[in-house]
Amino acid sequence: MRWWGWGEDGAAIALPEPAARLLAEELDLSGSERGTRVELADVRVPDPSLPGAARRSLEEAVGEGNVLDGMEERLAHAAGRSYPDLLRLRSGDASGAPDAVVLPQGEKEVAAVLGACTDAGVAVIPFGGGTSVVGGVEALRGGHASAVTLDLRRMDRVLEVDRTSLTASLEPGLMGPQLERLLGEEGLTLGHFPQSFEFSTLGGWIATRAGGHFATRQTHVDDLVQSVRAITPTGAWESRRLPGSGAGPSPDRLLIGSEGILGVITQAWVRVRPRPTIKASRAVAFDSFMAGAGAVRELSQSGLDPANCRLLDATEAQFNQAGPPGKAMLMLGFESAHHPVEADLDVALEVAAAHGGEPQDTAGKDDDSVGAWRDAFLAMPYLRDGLARLGVLSETFETAITWDRFEALHSAAMAGAREALGAKATVSCRFTHVYPDGPAPYFTVLAPARRSSEVEQWDAVKVAVSEALINAGGTITHHHAVGRDHRPWYDRQRPAPFARALVAAKRELDPVGILNPGVLIDPAD
Amino acid sequence: MRWWGWGEDGAAIALPEPAARLLAEELDLSGSERGTRVELADVRVPDPSLPGAARRSLEEAVGEGNVLDGMEERLAHAAGRSYPDLLRLRSGDASGAPDAVVLPQGEKEVAAVLGACTDAGVAVIPFGGGTSVVGGVEALRGGHASAVTLDLRRMDRVLEVDRTSLTASLEPGLMGPQLERLLGEEGLTLGHFPQSFEFSTLGGWIATRAGGHFATRQTHVDDLVQSVRAITPTGAWESRRLPGSGAGPSPDRLLIGSEGILGVITQAWVRVRPRPTIKASRAVAFDSFMAGAGAVRELSQSGLDPANCRLLDATEAQFNQAGPPGKAMLMLGFESAHHPVEADLDVALEVAAAHGGEPQDTAGKDDDSVGAWRDAFLAMPYLRDGLARLGVLSETFETAITWDRFEALHSAAMAGAREALGAKATVSCRFTHVYPDGPAPYFTVLAPARRSSEVEQWDAVKVAVSEALINAGGTITHHHAVGRDHRPWYDRQRPAPFARALVAAKRELDPVGILNPGVLIDPAD
Repeated sequence: MRWWGWGEDGAAIALPEPAARLLAEELDLSGSERGTRVELADVRVPDPSLPGAARRSLEEAVGEGNVLDGMEERLAHAAGRSYPDLLRLRSGDASGAPDAVVLPQGEKEVAAVLGACTDAGVAVIPFGGGTSVVGGVEALRGGHASAVTLDLRRMDRVLEVDRTSLTASLEPGLMGPQLERLLGEEGLTLGHFPQSFEFSTLGGWIATRAGGHFATRQTHVDDLVQSVRAITPTGAWESRRLPGSGAGPSPDRLLIGSEGILGVITQAWVRVRPRPTIKASRAVAFDSFMAGAGAVRELSQSGLDPANCRLLDATEAQFNQAGPPGKAMLMLGFESAHHPVEADLDVALEVAAAHGGEPQDTAGKDDDSVGAWRDAFLAMPYLRDGLARLGVLSETFETAITWDRFEALHSAAMAGAREALGAKATVSCRFTHVYPDGPAPYFTVLAPARRSSEVEQWDAVKVAVSEALINAGGTITHHHAVGRDHRPWYDRQRPAPFARALVAAKRELDPVGILNPGVLIDPAD
Repeated sequence: MRWWGWGEDGAAIALPEPAARLLAEELDLSGSERGTRVELADVRVPDPSLPGAARRSLEEAVGEGNVLDGMEERLAHAAGRSYPDLLRLRSGDASGAPDAVVLPQGEKEVAAVLGACTDAGVAVIPFGGGTSVVGGVEALRGGHASAVTLDLRRMDRVLEVDRTSLTASLEPGLMGPQLERLLGEEGLTLGHFPQSFEFSTLGGWIATRAGGHFATRQTHVDDLVQSVRAITPTGAWESRRLPGSGAGPSPDRLLIGSEGILGVITQAWVRVRPRPTIKASRAVAFDSFMAGAGAVRELSQSGLDPANCRLLDATEAQFNQAGPPGKAMLMLGFESAHHPVEADLDVALEVAAAHGGEPQDTAGKDDDSVGAWRDAFLAMPYLRDGLARLGVLSETFETAITWDRFEALHSAAMAGAREALGAKATVSCRFTHVYPDGPAPYFTVLAPARRSSEVEQWDAVKVAVSEALINAGGTITHHHAVGRDHRPWYDRQRPAPFARALVAAKRELDPVGILNPGVLIDPAD
C-alpha cells in the first residue's frame, strides 16, 4: 500500500463528479485550503534502535534477508490508516515506525521470533495488512527500548480445503482478494467482506473480530472461525476443529478479538460455502430513515435472512447516487447456491411495502445490483484520499445497539457530531449489519478541515461521538476494533472483572509483555 | 426432584410396552437382577461440618431461614443425575452432600454469601436444577473444610421484556417450563429445549453452554445470550446489552461455559422470538443411517435452516416406534411466526429424496409431529429410572465432529461401546444437532447391569467411548458440559495456553478458590 494513503501506487479512485459537486455545495469548500503532503524524502523516520544481539537472534530466527530496517519498509509499518494516521504520515511524521520489520515464513519462525524478543525484551507488533483505523499497529514500545513489527505476509497459503465439511485451513497473511481467488478456484467463498477487504488479512480479521459487510446473518468473523492456531510467547495454542462444543468456555472466543496481545495467529480453519449462483435483489425507497429502520427491524426478526439488507439515510443515498432525492434507500438481496430465492424477496418486499417502502425499477430482480453496491463500497477508502486533497475531514463511527434504544442513540450521535464540527458539516448514517435484536449503525462525518488544527478537530468529533455512543448504551466498536484509540471508552464498556481476567491471562501467556503494548490493556497492568 | 431419580414424587413415565418388550428381547434380561434402592431413612448423609461463625455470617447474608441443613435438603443437593450418581444415591451413599444449602434472594445476597465464604474459606457450589450428568454439582470441598450449595431457586423472575428488540431480562433460577410459560404470556418463546428442560434452569444452561434440542441453527445457549450479569468473589461482572460487538474478546463467552468456577450468574438478557404459529413437518425414512446422514449434510449446508432436523438410526427409531422397522428416520420440521414455510419443506423433501429418503404419511404436513417428538424427548430421563428398576445400565454420550470425520468417529464409538459392554448391549446413535460443518452425534448404550459392579461397568464404557471420541477428533461434550467426570478428556482437548489463561483468570477473580472446586480445573492449579 502507498505510504501516505489507500491503495497501491498508481491506483486511485476519484470521487464521482456529482458527489464532488454535492460535497462542495454542502460543505462550502470555496475558502478552504487543499490538503498537502511532504515528499517521501522528507518523511522523518526515527533511527532504528534494535540492539545488535537482538537483531542477530532475529536473523537466526527468520534468516538474514527477512529482518528489514530500510526506511521505506519501516515507514510502511509506522501507522494504520485512520484519519489522524494519514494526517501524520502526510505531514512527514513516521514516529510510530518499528526498529525493524520481521518476515516469518512459518510457525516455527514465529515461535523463534517471540522467543528471541522475550529474551531481549523487544516489543512485537503482529501485522497483517496494516489497515487498522484505531491505532492497532503503530509500533509502540510499552516499557521496552525497541520494537519490531512481525509482518505475516509470507504466510499466505491455503493449506487444505475440506469440501465435505465446507471448511478450509488458511494461513493468516492471506489478503481478501487472494483468499477469495484461491477459494473461488474450488467454487467456494468465505463470504467475508470488510471494507478493508482489498488489503486486510485473515489473521487481522480474526485478531480484530472483523465484521464482513455483505451479510446479515453471520457477519462477524467469530462465526466463520472453526478453530485457530496461535503462537504465544509461552507455547502453541491450538483448538480442535469442531462444528460446535460445550466443553468449557470457548478457547477460540478468547483469542478472537485479542488484537495481538495474547499470541500471533498462525493458522485457522474457517467455514466456507459454495459461491452463490442464484440471486434476487431490489432497492427500496423510504420517505425517512426511521421508516426504513422499521422495515429492517421486521425483516431482521422475520427469519428471512437476506444476504444483503443495508439501509442508507437520504444523505448517504445521495452521495452514492442511489434512488430518488430525499429518500432513504434499502438495498435488499437474497442469494443461494442451492435453491430459488425469489419467493423470499417477494415476502421481504411485502414487509417493506407495509412500512411505506417503494421498490425501485432501476435494480431488476435478477441482476447483480448487490454486486455493484459491493464494488462501490470497497472503493470508499480510496475516496478518503481524494477528500483529503480537497481539504475535507472524513471520519466514520460505528456501533451496535438494541432496537429499543436505536433512535435515542442515533439522535445523540448525530447531534454530537454536528455540535463538534459546526454548521458546514454533513453527518449521515447507514446500517452496515442488522441482527434480530438490533442494528449496527455506521455514521460518516465530512467537514472542511481546519488547516493546522486538523488533529484537534478530529479529536473533538471523535470524543463527542464516542461519548454519545457509550452514554446511549452502544458498543464503542462493532467491527473497527479497539486498538489504542478506543481505549478510553472500551475501558468503560467492558466488565471490570473481565478486564482483570484478561490482564491475568496476558501476564500468564506473555510474562514479559512483548505483544502489542498498549492495545486493549495498559502495559503497566 | 425426587432424591433417587428424575421427576417429582408421584410422577413417573413408564417405558412403553413395545419398547420394554424389545429391550427384554435384545438384552436378554431373563437372568438379570432387578435394581434396588434403600429407603430414605437408610441414606447415609455425613454430619454437617460448617463452623458456627461461618454459619452465622451466612445467616446474616441471606436470613436465618435460608441456611438449611436438614438431611433431606442436603441429600437433594448431594449429586447430579448421572447414571453413577443415581447408583450411588439408590445405594444410600450421599457423601457428596454439602454442609448446608443457602438460598439467596438476590444479587446482594449472593455477593454477601461469596464474601462470607471467601473470608471463612468455605467452598461454594452454585446450583440451578441439579440435573448435571457430569459431576458438576456434587459438593466437593477442594482444599476447604466445608462446602455450601448456593441454590438459586428463589431468583426466578422475568425482570423485563423488550418487545421491540425481542429480548428479555431473566433471573437464573427460572426453570424451563416456568420460563416458557411466562414468556408465552407475551406470545414469546426462548426456544431452548435441552433434554433436562423440565428441571434445569437458565443459569445452569448458561453456566454449562447447554444445547437446546429443538433447533438446527442457533442451538447453543451461547447464541441466545445477549448479556450476562454475574457476581464473582471479587466484584460484579456485567456486560452490555448489545446485538453484536467487536470490542476485544467477548466477555460473555468467557463466562458462558465457566460452570460456576468464575462467578455466579445472577441475571441475563436473552434473545427471544414470537411463538411459531406456522408449521410444516414430515418424517422421512432412509435405508441406512449413513444415507440419512448424507441428506442431513446437504440440508445443513443448503441454507434452508429447518427448525427440526433430527436423524435416528434404525435402533433408536424402533425404540421410539418411529417409522417402518429397520429404517433410519429423519424428523424434519419448519416453523415461522411470520411467513409460510411449506415451500421450504418441499425443497427439503426433494433433498431427502435425492438421498433415497421416503417421506412418511403418518406425520401430515401441517400437524405437530415435531411437538409430539419433543414431548417424547423430554420424557426420556424418566425412562432411565424404569430401566434401572429393570436392571439395565443406560448411558448416553454426545459429541460434535466435522462431516469428513463423522463416519470414522461413529464406527469407533459404536465399536468401543460394544467392546466394553459385551454382546448383549444395544448401542444406537442419533443426531441431536447439525451444523453446516458437521453433526452432533448422540450415542445411547443399554446393557444388562452387572450387579455389584455397576460402577466399574459404567466406568469401562465411559472410558472406552470417551477415548474413541477424543481420538477421532471430536469434542468430549457438545452440550453435557465437563464437570468433573469429563476432566481427563477435556484436559487433552483444550489448548494448553488456554488452560493456563483460565487458571490465571480464576485465580484473579476467586483468589481463595471457593467456587466449585475441581470443576474444569484442579483446585491445586
